[in-house]
Amino acid sequence: MNPDIEFAVWSGERAQRVVAVMEQHLPPIDDPPLALHAAMRYAALGGGKRVRALLAYASGELAGADDDRVDAVAAAVELIHAYSLVHDDLPCMDDDVLRRGKPTVHIAFGEATALLAGDALQCLAFEVVARAPDASPRIALLAHAAGSRGMAGGQALDLQAVGNASGLEDVERMHRLKTGALIHAAVRLGAACGAKAHDVDALDRYAADVGLAFQIVDDVLDVEGTAQSLGKTAGKDAAQQKPTYVSLLGVEGARQRIEALRKNAHADLVDFGTAARRLHEIADWIALRSS
Amino acid sequence: MNPDIEFAVWSGERAQRVVAVMEQHLPPIDDPPLALHAAMRYAALGGGKRVRALLAYASGELAGADDDRVDAVAAAVELIHAYSLVHDDLPCMDDDVLRRGKPTVHIAFGEATALLAGDALQCLAFEVVARAPDASPRIALLAHAAGSRGMAGGQALDLQAVGNASGLEDVERMHRLKTGALIHAAVRLGAACGAKAHDVDALDRYAADVGLAFQIVDDVLDVEGTAQSLGKTAGKDAAQQKPTYVSLLGVEGARQRIEALRKNAHADLVDFGTAARRLHEIADWIALRSS
Repeated sequence: MNPDIEFAVWSGERAQRVVAVMEQHLPPIDDPPLALHAAMRYAALGGGKRVRALLAYASGELAGADDDRVDAVAAAVELIHAYSLVHDDLPCMDDDVLRRGKPTVHIAFGEATALLAGDALQCLAFEVVARAPDASPRIALLAHAAGSRGMAGGQALDLQAVGNASGLEDVERMHRLKTGALIHAAVRLGAACGAKAHDVDALDRYAADVGLAFQIVDDVLDVEGTAQSLGKTAGKDAAQQKPTYVSLLGVEGARQRIEALRKNAHADLVDFGTAARRLHEIADWIALRSS
Repeated sequence: MNPDIEFAVWSGERAQRVVAVMEQHLPPIDDPPLALHAAMRYAALGGGKRVRALLAYASGELAGADDDRVDAVAAAVELIHAYSLVHDDLPCMDDDVLRRGKPTVHIAFGEATALLAGDALQCLAFEVVARAPDASPRIALLAHAAGSRGMAGGQALDLQAVGNASGLEDVERMHRLKTGALIHAAVRLGAACGAKAHDVDALDRYAADVGLAFQIVDDVLDVEGTAQSLGKTAGKDAAQQKPTYVSLLGVEGARQRIEALRKNAHADLVDFGTAARRLHEIADWIALRSS
């Protein structure tokens, strides 16, 4: 089979798989409070690339873990990601009405329910991991990644940056937290599910490169994409005067940076050999995506 | 020593203790993102009764756990509680400007930072527990208590109730989740820190009685108190046309219910003997409080 198609099959299967795992852990639609549970399911199951889950499965594979050992952490990182999007879209944050081509959660369910749905999705993420045996260090890692020295901290730096002139270093620090921390957790948590010895530093470098590439692609797509292709409002960064890789480096410079990070990510994996195959493919997929 | 004074000393010491534990786990004030960390500390360290921490220490004592074994869970339930207050006070929820006699977090730091501070405090709670050895079932319990079938779920039921006629049963179900779930977790988590066998069902009944009493006292104080005595806006329930124990039972009926629950709580503890002394005292303190 063509390697691209083979990867599409592998990633499609795992994306479906993590949705099924989340579905299994999410409260049933007919369980009260109905609006909250409907909003949680809408937020978590309403599509998305499932990048973080794929990273967890791929680094689990690297460490010799079967998919079923990775399921809980894969679902957890997706649940944390889903909650962060719900809160990000709220009027007091990005004030966005469109996500994945559909009304954002607060548009569909109201602000208060969206706030609570995000809170509860965060909680569910921990619960899913905690129900696995001997999972405590993993929860600590996940909690750290999602907290004020990780994702929530990056969002706070992002708020500070609106309307303020920031340099490349500031933007990079912000993105290392805002997007990078959870991507890093996904890679580390997946690997932690396996018993095979592996070079954690190399994985950390890989996660940093891929996380940054992911964000720069986002910045480029925000400039070049349309709401149609992105499934979310385009041109938001410029409208909010947010410093981005594109505003700092230009589109061409940003593209060069993405390409360099993609090559670095491959280099980070070189000692793992074929065990890192999926991580390798994911790096390409992230760097070369057009939506 | 007079038992009341002795309890005041015990509870004062533990309230100070849990603040010190939280202080130790909260990010330092000079660590960026500065606004987020300042808001988290403002929310978590800015006073409060520390009811949940005291419950955890007391039920830890019941199960033979030293205070230092309970510290992590005591801090965690307070952090979860603090985060929930920050989110509750937001304009899209209760829209409150005053808490513990001070401006609420979103008034002091802005809505977006308040949203994130709440998210990050939730996360920190899990991290604190997860750093303790073999803590996984406790995290699951905490996560469950704070999530959509616990506290966040109760808040959602509360939202539905605004402006809607609800009966006593609906109000009770809502409060069992909104306030009761985390109080229940505090009691259960504290006891889980000890090795001594204990009757979990009796503790559950105690937690249910105390949790409900706590909420009914809140309803009475909302009617009878002033912003001065409460440290928060008084008369909010009536202004929002929320069904409460007072609107359903009248002040006198509510007071009788509190007294019945206080006696039930004592009865729940009877088989524990003196090991349950603090839980006994906390039930009195909660039922008889005037602020």
